[in-house]
Amino acid sequence: MSAEEVANAFVQHFFQAFDADASSLAGLYSDTSMLTFEGTQIQGSAAIIEKLKSVGQVAHTVKTIDIQPSKDPSAIVIFVTGAVTIGGAGNPLHFCEFFHLVGTGPGQYYVHNDVFRLNYGL
Amino acid sequence: MSAEEVANAFVQHFFQAFDADASSLAGLYSDTSMLTFEGTQIQGSAAIIEKLKSVGQVAHTVKTIDIQPSKDPSAIVIFVTGAVTIGGAGNPLHFCEFFHLVGTGPGQYYVHNDVFRLNYGL
Repeated sequence: MSAEEVANAFVQHFFQAFDADASSLAGLYSDTSMLTFEGTQIQGSAAIIEKLKSVGQVAHTVKTIDIQPSKDPSAIVIFVTGAVTIGGAGNPLHFCEFFHLVGTGPGQYYVHNDVFRLNYGL
Repeated sequence: MSAEEVANAFVQHFFQAFDADASSLAGLYSDTSMLTFEGTQIQGSAAIIEKLKSVGQVAHTVKTIDIQPSKDPSAIVIFVTGAVTIGGAGNPLHFCEFFHLVGTGPGQYYVHNDVFRLNYGL
């Protein structure tokens, strides 16, 4: 798979899994992974999954996916924008999220960096 | 300077310089730098500066800055959200932008990855 195919497959899987059951994302992170979620910084797969679960019921709609090669040839920069509905009802909000996928072997990656922000209130 | 100090100084400088004269950003990029601007991918400092200048008169207001260590110890992940007014008038739009600063020597960095997206139209 090309980096672009990896990234597109990752994004599709990530948000489907997040919306269905955030626990299922645990294998995508490692102990060195870092998530910054609305300004709160969290390290390690277990703590990250707890944070994602605490958001409650979510529904993401991905609008754009941008992909770049990172400095490390095994790593991929992924930048996503879209809309998210939190708590099962209410108006969708804009979100943007950055993922840094780092390769650990042929066809194998984990999320080293993850930054999530809502974008509202001009 | 800590990575956080570097990142905050970079963000302040970047948007002030962009709003005043995009040409002055040339030294922040190298020939291997990549910008994805609203889905258009551009490589190399000269081509990136041409693209940024083509946006015309802009005024950015930074709202949030998130910083993480990258996989490479010399590199810094920076994620910015805020509002931007394009063309000297009109309503501000949400934007989000990712920078991957890579170190080239003590206290010296360049922008290896740059992804910019407006966030509008739910």
